[in-house]
Amino acid sequence: MREYPLKGVTVIDLGQVYQGPYAGFLLAKAGADVIKVEPPGGEPLRAREAVSGRALLPMAMLNQHKRAITLNLKTEKGKHLLIELAKKGDVLIENYAPGVLDKLGVGADALMSANPRLVYASATGYGLSGPERDSLAMDITVQAASGVMSITGFPDSPPVKAGPAIADFISGTHLYAGIVTALFEREKTGQGRHVEISMQETLYPTFASNLGLMTQDHDGAPPRVGNRHGGLALAPYNVYPAKDGYVSIICIKESHWGNLLKAMGREDLSEDERFSNNAQRVRHIDETDTLVSEWTSAHTRDELFELAREYRVPSAPVRDLVEVTHNEHMHARGMLHWLDHSSLGRIVVPDSPIRFTETPPMGAAENPGLGQHNDEVLRDFLGISEEEINQLAEEGVI
Amino acid sequence: MREYPLKGVTVIDLGQVYQGPYAGFLLAKAGADVIKVEPPGGEPLRAREAVSGRALLPMAMLNQHKRAITLNLKTEKGKHLLIELAKKGDVLIENYAPGVLDKLGVGADALMSANPRLVYASATGYGLSGPERDSLAMDITVQAASGVMSITGFPDSPPVKAGPAIADFISGTHLYAGIVTALFEREKTGQGRHVEISMQETLYPTFASNLGLMTQDHDGAPPRVGNRHGGLALAPYNVYPAKDGYVSIICIKESHWGNLLKAMGREDLSEDERFSNNAQRVRHIDETDTLVSEWTSAHTRDELFELAREYRVPSAPVRDLVEVTHNEHMHARGMLHWLDHSSLGRIVVPDSPIRFTETPPMGAAENPGLGQHNDEVLRDFLGISEEEINQLAEEGVI
Repeated sequence: MREYPLKGVTVIDLGQVYQGPYAGFLLAKAGADVIKVEPPGGEPLRAREAVSGRALLPMAMLNQHKRAITLNLKTEKGKHLLIELAKKGDVLIENYAPGVLDKLGVGADALMSANPRLVYASATGYGLSGPERDSLAMDITVQAASGVMSITGFPDSPPVKAGPAIADFISGTHLYAGIVTALFEREKTGQGRHVEISMQETLYPTFASNLGLMTQDHDGAPPRVGNRHGGLALAPYNVYPAKDGYVSIICIKESHWGNLLKAMGREDLSEDERFSNNAQRVRHIDETDTLVSEWTSAHTRDELFELAREYRVPSAPVRDLVEVTHNEHMHARGMLHWLDHSSLGRIVVPDSPIRFTETPPMGAAENPGLGQHNDEVLRDFLGISEEEINQLAEEGVI
Repeated sequence: MREYPLKGVTVIDLGQVYQGPYAGFLLAKAGADVIKVEPPGGEPLRAREAVSGRALLPMAMLNQHKRAITLNLKTEKGKHLLIELAKKGDVLIENYAPGVLDKLGVGADALMSANPRLVYASATGYGLSGPERDSLAMDITVQAASGVMSITGFPDSPPVKAGPAIADFISGTHLYAGIVTALFEREKTGQGRHVEISMQETLYPTFASNLGLMTQDHDGAPPRVGNRHGGLALAPYNVYPAKDGYVSIICIKESHWGNLLKAMGREDLSEDERFSNNAQRVRHIDETDTLVSEWTSAHTRDELFELAREYRVPSAPVRDLVEVTHNEHMHARGMLHWLDHSSLGRIVVPDSPIRFTETPPMGAAENPGLGQHNDEVLRDFLGISEEEINQLAEEGVI
């Protein structure tokens, strides 16, 4: 087995909720030593946990293999300790609102002058510059402002967000990506970087299909299309009702349509002008969808999936999250693991979606408790005496 | 100005449609020399372009700053040329179905034994192993199978996909991330890596809020919640109607609720038991939402956004894609650029959402035409004579 690729990299992870912590999670799962730094009351996700246990699972998912310490950045000693950590670390992650750490005197300028090799990574809703820099941002407000909602949902319904927290996670992934890019560069130049990610900006490329529609025959903004193709350029391309749920079916190539006709037992339609090619089927999109719906409605989800597989038609069942957490395939691949968690009982936690062949997934680990590694990190990493550590605790610095 | 961080890295980009090409896009924008390799008929997105101009904008968005060559991998000479490219390159990207390139004799094993320093990056729908490996995958089928659809949309409506192609793009981002991680490692070990990304797996972490719901008071799968919090753990947290559209408003901290009451001119409710804290507001979620809706309905989107900004309440207008492409803030930051495109006219193209301070965004560039750089790359990069290049063209190899 080969070593994890980021072995030897030390990360100071001030990340909060999903975006920052997901970057830290990917770093930890790639072999970095990640030290999660929280205020003495816990980061917002942990604080939310006290109100509702519902925040505990995300905490468990995203903080595996990290060590956790507390640090009160509103005290001089707390700031001093953060500077000491940054001097010894390779990477610092933060997703505070723009300017928060600068005001405290521990922003990029201060920490990178203390350690010019530091990769200082900032993630915000709208970026560190520009007229909208200071708008308050969370996943849902960014889904609104970025355009995601305007193109999600059915044409006759109000705009709706993507159910998962995509703004947090796609930006958290870019954050990890930027960090590792800067680490690569540092191997050549010896210099750190201030890497910056805006949630809003990481979503823009995802509108490719929908934006394509705008340049062509459409005036005005792209409509919501339900489950149809974002550019209304393919048919069939939709979610269809089964006896016991829903399935998605799409035809990318003409051969897929031929295969679908066979699966449906409707090869008689292969000569039908209305369906003779994709352009024709798009023109007759309602008829095309009705034809497919009639067939799917007479079968179960499993039957349809089997038929689609047999006839090589791109298709998938619409699965709910109970099915997904139990998905045999992802468990077999080592992406999902069962974990007996001390507070939550038996849960499923993910491994990293970035897979390095020759090095197996790391497996599950319980998230650290608040300040669990205060002693260990302050003593072994920063060389602070037990006595001093006790005093820091008494003074509310940690 | 500092150099781009990936200066000197050469990428062989066999990417198709969105997922692979987005990884290549991020590499090019970070300074790598990216050679896009297409079959002589063009990759599927370019071929789709011939059917509908709607595919042209995505092509323009994702292939800036790349050079483009053609290669027929069904010919022996074509395969040989790919091996030569892989020998001289640092990274190879491919998002064919599992096994396709192996069968042609130019899979990871063959190319990495030709060049042990090569980072060979594969992205698929479900991964290169496991029982569902061979399911046909596109953005929408993966949104179905992964669980995204089951939690997107309103409770009384069918499941619906996230409008943007999130499966393609979040996995494309992980693909870039894995590549750069392996490049960093190679600086230390001298060895390449086979990096592997599954679309399905990159979506799992994004369900954090929704999965949190499952561990608690809910039996069965998390419901669709429309625009409410995925874990139904916060209120207000929703999209509300304005006179002229919609706005999202959320309260993360108690102070946000206090601020919202002030903005609404309803400080009389600050003592109201039903709204006294988040847990109470969640318990009275319909009343809470009704209260906010009544206020928002009486104002325009802009008025609400201004009030929210003034009173520090997290909020954002629901913007459509015309507004988004013209967004002053993103243009000011150099994330969006106007480009006079030879086929499309005046369009907007994105820059990289990964920003390296001290090195400005790269700016806009027109995507290369099919095979536009055949001569240049074959001659200068591979050292092939003009005569031989002409012969390759005649034989249909390029």
